[in-house]
Amino acid sequence: MAKKKRVLIIGGGFAGLHAAKTLNQHSRFETELINANNYFVFQPLLPEAAAGVIAPPDAVSPLRFLLPGVTIRHARVRSIDFKARRAETIDTMQRIITHVRFDHLVLAPGQISNLSHFPGLAEHGLSMKNLSDAYRLRNHIIATLEQADVTTNPELKRQLLTYVTVGGGFSGVETTGEIEHMIGGLLRFYPRIKRHDIRIILIEYAGRILGELPEKLAHFTHSRLTKRGVDIRLNTKIEAASAYGVHLAGGQRIKTATIISTIGAGPSPFVERLGLDMQWGRIKTDPMMRVPGVKNVWAIGDAALIPLGSQRGDGDPEYAQPTAQFATRQGHHVAHNIIAVINGNPPRPFSFRPRGALASIGRHHAVASVFGIQLSGTLAWFLWRLLYLGLLPGISAKLRLMSSWLLDHFLPRRAVQLEQWRRPAASYAHFVKGDQVLRPGMITEGFYTILEGSFDLRIKNPQTGKMFHRILRKGDHFGERVIFDPSLTTGHVIAREDSVCMVLERHDFLRFAQGFPFLDSYFRDYITKNFPAALRPENINPPKKQPSKNRISRSNQTTKNRRPASRPKTPKTRPKLNPLMKKPSTKKPG
Amino acid sequence: MAKKKRVLIIGGGFAGLHAAKTLNQHSRFETELINANNYFVFQPLLPEAAAGVIAPPDAVSPLRFLLPGVTIRHARVRSIDFKARRAETIDTMQRIITHVRFDHLVLAPGQISNLSHFPGLAEHGLSMKNLSDAYRLRNHIIATLEQADVTTNPELKRQLLTYVTVGGGFSGVETTGEIEHMIGGLLRFYPRIKRHDIRIILIEYAGRILGELPEKLAHFTHSRLTKRGVDIRLNTKIEAASAYGVHLAGGQRIKTATIISTIGAGPSPFVERLGLDMQWGRIKTDPMMRVPGVKNVWAIGDAALIPLGSQRGDGDPEYAQPTAQFATRQGHHVAHNIIAVINGNPPRPFSFRPRGALASIGRHHAVASVFGIQLSGTLAWFLWRLLYLGLLPGISAKLRLMSSWLLDHFLPRRAVQLEQWRRPAASYAHFVKGDQVLRPGMITEGFYTILEGSFDLRIKNPQTGKMFHRILRKGDHFGERVIFDPSLTTGHVIAREDSVCMVLERHDFLRFAQGFPFLDSYFRDYITKNFPAALRPENINPPKKQPSKNRISRSNQTTKNRRPASRPKTPKTRPKLNPLMKKPSTKKPG
Repeated sequence: MAKKKRVLIIGGGFAGLHAAKTLNQHSRFETELINANNYFVFQPLLPEAAAGVIAPPDAVSPLRFLLPGVTIRHARVRSIDFKARRAETIDTMQRIITHVRFDHLVLAPGQISNLSHFPGLAEHGLSMKNLSDAYRLRNHIIATLEQADVTTNPELKRQLLTYVTVGGGFSGVETTGEIEHMIGGLLRFYPRIKRHDIRIILIEYAGRILGELPEKLAHFTHSRLTKRGVDIRLNTKIEAASAYGVHLAGGQRIKTATIISTIGAGPSPFVERLGLDMQWGRIKTDPMMRVPGVKNVWAIGDAALIPLGSQRGDGDPEYAQPTAQFATRQGHHVAHNIIAVINGNPPRPFSFRPRGALASIGRHHAVASVFGIQLSGTLAWFLWRLLYLGLLPGISAKLRLMSSWLLDHFLPRRAVQLEQWRRPAASYAHFVKGDQVLRPGMITEGFYTILEGSFDLRIKNPQTGKMFHRILRKGDHFGERVIFDPSLTTGHVIAREDSVCMVLERHDFLRFAQGFPFLDSYFRDYITKNFPAALRPENINPPKKQPSKNRISRSNQTTKNRRPASRPKTPKTRPKLNPLMKKPSTKKPG
Repeated sequence: MAKKKRVLIIGGGFAGLHAAKTLNQHSRFETELINANNYFVFQPLLPEAAAGVIAPPDAVSPLRFLLPGVTIRHARVRSIDFKARRAETIDTMQRIITHVRFDHLVLAPGQISNLSHFPGLAEHGLSMKNLSDAYRLRNHIIATLEQADVTTNPELKRQLLTYVTVGGGFSGVETTGEIEHMIGGLLRFYPRIKRHDIRIILIEYAGRILGELPEKLAHFTHSRLTKRGVDIRLNTKIEAASAYGVHLAGGQRIKTATIISTIGAGPSPFVERLGLDMQWGRIKTDPMMRVPGVKNVWAIGDAALIPLGSQRGDGDPEYAQPTAQFATRQGHHVAHNIIAVINGNPPRPFSFRPRGALASIGRHHAVASVFGIQLSGTLAWFLWRLLYLGLLPGISAKLRLMSSWLLDHFLPRRAVQLEQWRRPAASYAHFVKGDQVLRPGMITEGFYTILEGSFDLRIKNPQTGKMFHRILRKGDHFGERVIFDPSLTTGHVIAREDSVCMVLERHDFLRFAQGFPFLDSYFRDYITKNFPAALRPENINPPKKQPSKNRISRSNQTTKNRRPASRPKTPKTRPKLNPLMKKPSTKKPG
């Protein structure tokens, strides 16, 4: 008997899942699927997961449950050798290279959020693409409510309670509708927040929302959301996002702590490295979904640009849309084409007409256009739920989803902030002219290195009472005194122009510096050179008795990071810390 | 009318929650509760949450739901001014200091995991104390199964499928029982893992497990768990944990990727800074639960050492136990004492006899000793569930818990790995003599700075074929070439003695270096000084065309971190990257 043919599928979204499913029905093949997560994400449920209608795990299903018989590899793909017919993968846990052989390869990696539409979006936007995004958005919104309920600063409260969604397509409208619903329901637990304190703004560049649906349904949705208090701004262009809000073309600025980005998608870096022929960020295929120039390689799903054989009104060729309906169909189709090729038969071109589209807009309303029939309101919402319950793969996932929906109907929405988002050790921050980065009395938990632009620094000299002023430019730092002493900020720092900083998180930086003691002298020199004596940390904070005071040294802030007191070895090589600001939290980093 | 008295409670565990609840029934007071999370954690359910019987949010309940009328401040406490009667808090989101005034202060901050029992535990142990711990343990176990199912390395497979729990008390036994149950149920989805591949080891220093319960029940539990394949090692001392396993006294080494620590608790850094009189890591109080020396300050719960007025067999005074039963009682009692003091009446001493104890051991079994009656098996397990369902605060939390239990009964356990744990930018790693840190062919995603100990480095010189050997000591680095070029490791690094490294995550380090260009020259110098020319990165990886090759520069690995391509400003100041290893994942850091 001939050796079984190996079909390797990269990506476990709608396209990859359905390709694997169909192939798996043919025991003549060995099917393997590689995915960076061990689960399939049911994208249409993400807005409900972000809004807490369902628990985030309800929107996903483990690939192993869905594909018994298929080898599931939870890994990242590093490269593909099309000639040798093997993929080089990196296991997620142990960092070891594995080579995975294939006879046929199906590329179905999907796309990733593209946050490059305007400056600052990558740094300050929240995307809505996968399970972590839903988690993070939900936790972030609860954090804004928690904070707004106790703050005594009305300006901060207004900023915290302003929520901006960028993009009025399906994802933007559904997410906006769901979070409006969620916030409305949670307000009774936040006694100091009134409904009129909340501002939810949906910004769309085009002249209408829901471009994917007939105008009538878009109109219905628009007026529904407006009635519910959502401020929809059409024909509105955003120039920049910053740590303090979004900046519209024309100069208007919306102060907000929440920028949800639902616009744009792009190829994953892995796809870009393959060296295949691409257009609009997608891999070009022939009508059979084969990738030209490489044998037995197929591309499907959002990452593929598949011609449908037909033409649009303007004479350009029509391509498959990057939607779940198309991806599902392509998955089945590619499986049949691969079977045909292995059996020596010709593959067939892909064609499909979508059946319709539905959008849930929160508060038990949806809009739908199915088989030419247009529906809106509660009936459409029932249809939406019924359809997606049917489409969610796996019986147990369906039962769990039903149970979550049922509980949500009768019980108050949960306001548990499951995890506080932790800023990465080094992150970028974008500031627009006039943004106040630091002001006296703030706790700085990191410090800033200027990569672009400039800032005004003003500090009152505690001895003379005079203001010290310096312009900080590229390569300068500010806030670095927190490394030596975590006291409160004493100066003002204001952006003089559009600027980009790298923010280094204090705790991680202290550890880095421990590994590189020369950083300590670098900062000492920098401060000596750039600041008058009265502003140097040693003169503001009188020396303590410890000989190693003010030295960068190992931090012992939190449980997990704390060095065991009982560590037996060479305790003298460990200089004692500054009286660092310690956190009472028992939360561990990561 | 006199101004309302303000009672401030720090901590929202069993003690703080019940103090707030009782005080809140007296509208004469203004009650405020400060907690680092916005929810109450129902500790007894954490093992079930870690094992996926219930969803982690089922084990918690938002404090706002439980305490309507009480001001909930989601913040960290920075310091307390006992004289001025105010606490200085830091909001979790905006880093602004707020002062919170009080007339009476209740300290109920609980304790944190103390991972200092032996070297390496802090670096490589997983604790079981809060919701994040449960999440992390669950995700970690699923990751080990995923990896073990596809690895072709039998040694790695064995290490991944060995699970070690440290500590045979309640938490250790319940966690071990639940994860054995979970793994057993999940195996059918991992076709290449057999039951006999799994090793679950419970290590206890004392001569028996469940010291809190009568011997008969401990014995029952012991034989039950042993029958289920758990390897219980009594009278066993651990000397050290390392990245590769645990090292027992006597020299035996257990290779494992999972070390669950359930031993030890200690004061939070915040409590240590208060300057109060402490013993055994707990705040000393008088029998009325007042803290001596500071007026109107009370301490309750695990953080407090409260004398019960009685004596133990050995004549020492008896103290309240750090358990939920005691904490709940103390919460009510402190509320009544505060009311008494405000009304001019004397407070009463605290006294309480616990009613019993229960431990669930997985697979629908539990052991219980209640009102002197001892039970074991399924009946005890029903009792356990009934009791905790009753104790879980909040009707809607109860309903959600019941629904989760019901679904778990009929549906397969979910194997969704919700979030991959991300190593912090800078973390410590402990190595024991002989540990192989790097070997050829590994991907290194960071590099190592030696803080203690020494390592042998051996690399084959690609030109001469000879082995280059160097002993690396404190202050030396290894793996730093990955900063310049993320190729595979070419050398062996083996610990020569017990050693501690700091591991710097590559991605964050590249960003740090971008802020401090002098790091680049530091590493260049270091490599030039320490390695023969043939081993320098520029000679191993032939120069590329780009003029900025091999310079540390801004990484553009993942979506979120990628610098927008469209950024308009000063593109020339941004040197292009090396061909960095890019991840296909769309996961964002943090």
